[in-house]
Amino acid sequence: MSKTDRTKELILERTAGIFNTKGFVGTSLNDITSVTGLTKGSIYGNFKNKDAVAIEAFKYNLQIMTQLFVSEMAKKETCREKLLVYPELLWDFPETRLPQGGCPILNTAIESDDTHPELKRHAKKALLRWKDTFVGILKNGMEVGEFKPELNSEQVAITILALLEGGIMIGKLTDSRKQIQFIMESLRDYINQL
Amino acid sequence: MSKTDRTKELILERTAGIFNTKGFVGTSLNDITSVTGLTKGSIYGNFKNKDAVAIEAFKYNLQIMTQLFVSEMAKKETCREKLLVYPELLWDFPETRLPQGGCPILNTAIESDDTHPELKRHAKKALLRWKDTFVGILKNGMEVGEFKPELNSEQVAITILALLEGGIMIGKLTDSRKQIQFIMESLRDYINQL
Repeated sequence: MSKTDRTKELILERTAGIFNTKGFVGTSLNDITSVTGLTKGSIYGNFKNKDAVAIEAFKYNLQIMTQLFVSEMAKKETCREKLLVYPELLWDFPETRLPQGGCPILNTAIESDDTHPELKRHAKKALLRWKDTFVGILKNGMEVGEFKPELNSEQVAITILALLEGGIMIGKLTDSRKQIQFIMESLRDYINQL
Repeated sequence: MSKTDRTKELILERTAGIFNTKGFVGTSLNDITSVTGLTKGSIYGNFKNKDAVAIEAFKYNLQIMTQLFVSEMAKKETCREKLLVYPELLWDFPETRLPQGGCPILNTAIESDDTHPELKRHAKKALLRWKDTFVGILKNGMEVGEFKPELNSEQVAITILALLEGGIMIGKLTDSRKQIQFIMESLRDYINQL
C-alpha cells in the first residue's frame, strides 16, 4: 500500500461509521478532520469533495456487511440454510456485526432517495445486487429440488429483503429485541415454506 | 382559529413535505422562511426552535398518512378486508397519497435513531401505535372466527409493518412499481392465509 492508499484507508475506516450514523448531510468536514486527526487540505488531497468521501464510505460499510453475510453463507451446505443465515444473524440484533449505524443501504436509501441522486444510485445498485444474490440461491434451490418449482424467485427475493430492511428499521427504532425477533421468526417461517 | 393558530398551520402545511423529504438536519431555517414567506422572527415567534417545527411537522405528516389508511379501512366490513387496505393502497405507489417524501415514520426513524432522541421517541410511539391498531384488528378477527385462533397477533402485526416499511423503502429506492408490487403481493398472500 502506498502512503496515499494508507491515508485514504484511514479516512474511510474512521469516517464510515459516522456517515452511516449521522448521514451525509449530518456529517461535517469538522467531523472528518477531528476523527482522522488530518487537516482539511489532507482530506481534500485524497478525495475530491465530501461526496467522494461519502460514496467511498458507503462502499466501505457495504463491504463490511456483505463480508459478514457471505462468510456465514459459505459455511452452509444447502440453499435453504444459506437463506436462513439472515434471520439467524439478525436474531441477535443489535449485537449482529453490522456496520456502525446499521444497514448502509437502508440508511443511504432513506437519506438520498429524494435529495442525492448519486448516493441513491449506489444504494440502489447494492440493493439490486443483493436481490440478485437471493435470486441465484433460489434458482439453484429450485433446480436441485430444495424449493417448490413454481416459486417466483424475483418476488421471493425482494420480499426477503423487505422483511430484512423493515426488521432492521423497526429493531433500531424500538430498541426491542422482541420486535426484530418476531419479524425474523416470520422470515424464518417464510423461508421454511418455500 | 386565532391568527397565531393560522400562522402555525401555514408553517406546518408548507414545511411538512420539506422535513419529510430533506430530513431534519437537511432542512434549514432558510428553507422554512423561503417556503412560508415569513421572517425568522415570525417563525420563532410561533415555534421555540427548529426542533419544535420538526416535531410538529412529523405529527402533521403522520396525520395525513393515518387519515388515508383510516378512511379506507372504515369503508371495509371485515377485519381481513381492513388489513388488505394496506397492500391495496400501496399497490399504486408512488401514486399512493402518502405525505410528500413517503412514510414519515420510516424517514424520521432512519434519520433520528442514532442522533435525535426526541424525534426518535415520536417515531417510535407512532410505530407502536400503528402496531397496536393491527393487533386490535387481528384480535377482533380472531374473536369472530375470521382468522386462525392460534395467531400471535403481536408477531403478525409487526411483520405486516416490516413488509410495509421495507416495501416503501425499496419502492422509493428502485423507482420500480414491479418491486413494491411484488412485496405487496406477498403481503396480500400473508394476510389471506392468516
